Amino acid sequence: MLQLSNGQWSSLYNIFSFGLISMLATTVFTLVSQSRVLPKYRIALVMSSMVTFIAGYHYFRIFNSFTESSMKNAVSVGTAQGSFNEAYRYIDWILTVPLLLVEVIAVLALAKEASKSLISRLVPASAAMIILGYPGEISSNNGTKVIFGILSTIPFLYILQVLFVELTKSLDRQPEGVAATVSRLRLLLIGTWGVYPISYLLPILIKHPSATQAADLFTGRQIGYTIADVLAKCVFGLTILKIARMKSAAEGMADTH
Amino acid sequence: MLQLSNGQWSSLYNIFSFGLISMLATTVFTLVSQSRVLPKYRIALVMSSMVTFIAGYHYFRIFNSFTESSMKNAVSVGTAQGSFNEAYRYIDWILTVPLLLVEVIAVLALAKEASKSLISRLVPASAAMIILGYPGEISSNNGTKVIFGILSTIPFLYILQVLFVELTKSLDRQPEGVAATVSRLRLLLIGTWGVYPISYLLPILIKHPSATQAADLFTGRQIGYTIADVLAKCVFGLTILKIARMKSAAEGMADTH
Repeated sequence: MLQLSNGQWSSLYNIFSFGLISMLATTVFTLVSQSRVLPKYRIALVMSSMVTFIAGYHYFRIFNSFTESSMKNAVSVGTAQGSFNEAYRYIDWILTVPLLLVEVIAVLALAKEASKSLISRLVPASAAMIILGYPGEISSNNGTKVIFGILSTIPFLYILQVLFVELTKSLDRQPEGVAATVSRLRLLLIGTWGVYPISYLLPILIKHPSATQAADLFTGRQIGYTIADVLAKCVFGLTILKIARMKSAAEGMADTH
Repeated sequence: MLQLSNGQWSSLYNIFSFGLISMLATTVFTLVSQSRVLPKYRIALVMSSMVTFIAGYHYFRIFNSFTESSMKNAVSVGTAQGSFNEAYRYIDWILTVPLLLVEVIAVLALAKEASKSLISRLVPASAAMIILGYPGEISSNNGTKVIFGILSTIPFLYILQVLFVELTKSLDRQPEGVAATVSRLRLLLIGTWGVYPISYLLPILIKHPSATQAADLFTGRQIGYTIADVLAKCVFGLTILKIARMKSAAEGMADTH
């Protein structure tokens, strides 16, 4: 049992709710924006809608799991019935991270062979990253956390490196004005993805946390994950939409939408 | 009452949630992908959307039934009010399996007479297969399980044989490149449908199971059914979409989507 303060409990309650509606609102926005980009960029928007739809579902579950697993601000964490279910995040990521990667590749509109090669490298790497992270997440042993953290970081760095290189390479091929936005997407990717390992590692910072420290670490981790999710899914998806709009305009789509 | 361990309880809780969101996300994806295939292939996508929509509903029910029928990881299984309702799966299958069969036939785009003949043979066979399976599923008597298992296997093998033969025959008629995907569809069909009888038969493996063994068997069966459902409905539907896209492109649809 983690005894949270009033402020901590209501911060989490509200940030989960914020995550939930941000995901759903972005889903609606990217769905209705389909016709505002050229057909070849629509699949990138569909992928973004799928990502935020799946994440919205999981924030709904996380929100409910949090309220149902706590009583008088005390949260029961673990895997027993009625505990706060941390696994929702991992099930979310195993579905959304591969979709996010396909979303980036789709908006770059590379040649078919290049896209296929990227997908076949990045999707298995992202699955490995998430599957290797989970045992560390649920373990209360810091040694286990560090080992799985390191194992999970290998595919994580590989993905970032491949994406960073591809996005950088594609800068030259982008029409005028788009390059700046793709460059920002690159930064957004590094910046938001960097929050996940920090949130993951938070519990390791303090070896034998007191009850207050454990509550602080739990609250910090959940807030970190939620902010990272909103940036990496909603803001990221809206940036993808902006890039698709600019490329569509540069390729002759009338800008009347 | 089946006393599950923490790990078993949370595995089932999470895999039911995973099944639910996989079905719903696939439903949205196949719905928005309608315009990306030629009109004659759209009915196959509609069928796929219906299959995953109906299955998503049932996973929502199964998820709720599971949490409501369990207390402190102990699940009450049976047909009394408040028990874990195994019938949801059978109601799901009686609706989705005929639709799945129509989905395959639709994407093959056979001549009208050939389609009609296939549907009139496969739909009644699939109904017989599911109706004959249910008495065995809910019986706690192994003899009853085996008898209904055998009765249900007769239409099951008939369906697989007819579909396999039809898919194989259609390989020659497919445009270049599509044959490989249709051939993969054939494998997916055999591979995933094969999981159902294995999950069904799991409880027969051990004659007088101890409480621990009974919990293991229950967990194994539910996980098996869920994975088979995700493969046979989501992955299958996405493969149908891929075939429809490839055939549309081969028949002259501009590949700009």
